[in-house]
Order: sequence, then C-alpha cells, then structure tokens
Amino acid sequence: MPEEPRTERGRRTRERIVAAAAGLVERQGVEATSLDQVLAEARASKSQLYHYFADKQALVRAVIAWQTTTIMDGIAEHLAAIDSWTDLDAWFDALVAHQQALDCRIGCPIGSLAAELADTDEPARQDLARSFDAWAAQLRTVLDRLRDRGLIRADTDTATLAQSTLAAIQGGLLLAKTTRDPQRLRATLTAAGGYLRSLAPPP
Amino acid sequence: MPEEPRTERGRRTRERIVAAAAGLVERQGVEATSLDQVLAEARASKSQLYHYFADKQALVRAVIAWQTTTIMDGIAEHLAAIDSWTDLDAWFDALVAHQQALDCRIGCPIGSLAAELADTDEPARQDLARSFDAWAAQLRTVLDRLRDRGLIRADTDTATLAQSTLAAIQGGLLLAKTTRDPQRLRATLTAAGGYLRSLAPPP
Repeated sequence: MPEEPRTERGRRTRERIVAAAAGLVERQGVEATSLDQVLAEARASKSQLYHYFADKQALVRAVIAWQTTTIMDGIAEHLAAIDSWTDLDAWFDALVAHQQALDCRIGCPIGSLAAELADTDEPARQDLARSFDAWAAQLRTVLDRLRDRGLIRADTDTATLAQSTLAAIQGGLLLAKTTRDPQRLRATLTAAGGYLRSLAPPP
Repeated sequence: MPEEPRTERGRRTRERIVAAAAGLVERQGVEATSLDQVLAEARASKSQLYHYFADKQALVRAVIAWQTTTIMDGIAEHLAAIDSWTDLDAWFDALVAHQQALDCRIGCPIGSLAAELADTDEPARQDLARSFDAWAAQLRTVLDRLRDRGLIRADTDTATLAQSTLAAIQGGLLLAKTTRDPQRLRATLTAAGGYLRSLAPPP
C-alpha cells in the first residue's frame, strides 16, 4: 500500500517525483506522459514511485494538489496587496507580463488539466473543481476588500463575481496560449476590470 | 498520397471518418484516441483512412476544421438575430441551456483541443488560433451592429471586445465543465454582458 513519507529524505523523493510529473504534464498533457518518463525526469526508481503512489491516477492527483499550492502561493502576496483599482491593474499587468515571459506557453496548468481530465477522470475532476473554488475564494477576499473600501456597491454578490473573474482569467490564458499573443489575455483582463469598475456605487 | 474525395460516396466516407474522430476526441481527447478506435467507430477500413489522411495529425486537423464549421453553423443563426440587449441575453440563455442539457460535459470542443494541442502540435495550434479568430470575427459583427444601433459607444474597439467576450465564454465553459455547474457559465456571461452594457453612450 502506498504511504506518506516518514522521513525528510522520503519527503524530498516524493516531492521530486511530483514536481517532475507536474513539469511533464504541463508541457505534454497527462495522457502523453508515461510513468517511465516521470522516473527518468525525477531520477527515481519504480519502487520509490510505487512506495508513494498506487498508480498514475494517484500521481496525477498529487500533481493537481502540487499545482494548486504552487499557484496559490504565487498569487497570495499579489492578492493580499490589492486595495485599489490601481493595485488590481498592477496584478493584471503582472499576469500578462508572466505569460509574455513564457512566450504564452503552458497557460494555466490547472486549466489545462481541467480541460483534459474533466470528462475522463472523475476524482481528478473533483480535485480540479475544488482547486478552482480555492482560487475563486482567494479572489473573493480581494473583491470583499474593494467592496469594504466603497469601490464596489455594498449589495454586490462577490462570490459570483469571483467566479466570473476567474473564468475571464482562464479564458484569456487559453486564447493567449492558442494564439501566442499576450494581448488576448490583456483584452480579457481589461474587460473583467471594466466590469468590476461598472459596479462602483453611484457618486 | 492522401487526396480529396472525388465521388459523392468518397465524400461521405471521409465525412464519416472525421465525424467519428471528432466524437471520440470530444469525449477522451486526442492523445487517448487511437486510429483503430476511429476506424471501429466509423466502420471504415485502414486503406479508406489512409486514402484521405496521411497520418493522425492530418486527421486531427480535419477534426478541427469539422468542429469549427459545426460551431460556426450552430451559432450563425443566433448571432444574426442579435439586435438588442434582450437578443444578446437570449443567446447567452441558449448557451447555458445547451450546457445544462449536456450535463456540462465536453464544454467547447475547440477550447478543449486548444488546451491539449497548443503546446505540442504547432500546425494544429495555428488552425485553432484561426478557429478562435473566425469565432471572434462573428462576434464582432454582432458588436458592430449593437454599436451601429447606438447601444455601445461609437469609439468602442469592437475587435478587442470580441476577443474578451470569446475569452469569457471559453472560461465560463471550462469552469462549468470542471464543476458540472452551468451557473459558472451563467455568472461569466452576466459579467461579459454587464461589461458590454457599461460601454453604452452617456445618456
């Protein structure tokens, strides 16, 4: 039976396997990624792999958790700093600059996993739905703050607004990745930000 | 060398192969779809397949073209009828109802193909980018009409607005597919429509 690592070295081995799998899946998708590729990339043995993961599906779920944590950690500081429209625009600028730096490859790893797995791997789909919900919850705390500052009307449903903002980000990333044009993401974020601003209380 | 069908029966055989491949790819993705599965589903022989397609990649490009035509044909009538905010809302309602009827499976076939292939199949990526551009061009004609009717400010950049609207639809479909909740798409379309309305000329 697979188990959690009990030593620091074990923890590092497991982490190395998951990170290697995440990188391969990011570049080529789940279906095209073999366990042998993961082992080669992680410099791990088959027995090490099966010590921590029952099968490929279990490894994929670990990849989803790893990507979710990586993304949440990456945006946490940015989101915590948003206290005005200018701050929001600065975060959007950072998202566009990040895609530009990547030549618009990869897009959102969670979005790509969701597109590939939602209809074929039900446990993964549920993990990915929770991942999107965690992201939306982070966005909602930002929107609540903007509402508390009086920038957005007091009666705004920030939970729904967080969902639509997340969807805009995902759609913008997908279009940018497909066209290799970061301006697609830029256009989408401008529209998402414009909609938020349209919810300002009447002067 | 593969060739175009020269007879009506040949055209039907090619069409049957592409439609079968499109259905399989929709449900399980490109990588997980084998040519043998396509042949079984299409009730076609290997020689028929290779008569029309050099390899799997050529078949995938035919699937992209097939899905693009199917989607464009499916929305053309709806889009041509949009002449007011009420008409736009009716189209958005139809999009949500369609996803609900599908139990939010599949999402957008072009979006799923883009997520899977953009980083691994460059000719497919270019086809998919053109497919998104064709879709955005259709949306733009609607936005131009709303602008000509005075519903949107005369100085609005409708090309960029079409991109952001398409991205919102794509993101909403992805979130709905992942959570199996059509309200994610609803929230996204409400935001996209709200942004368009915020571009109304000052009274």
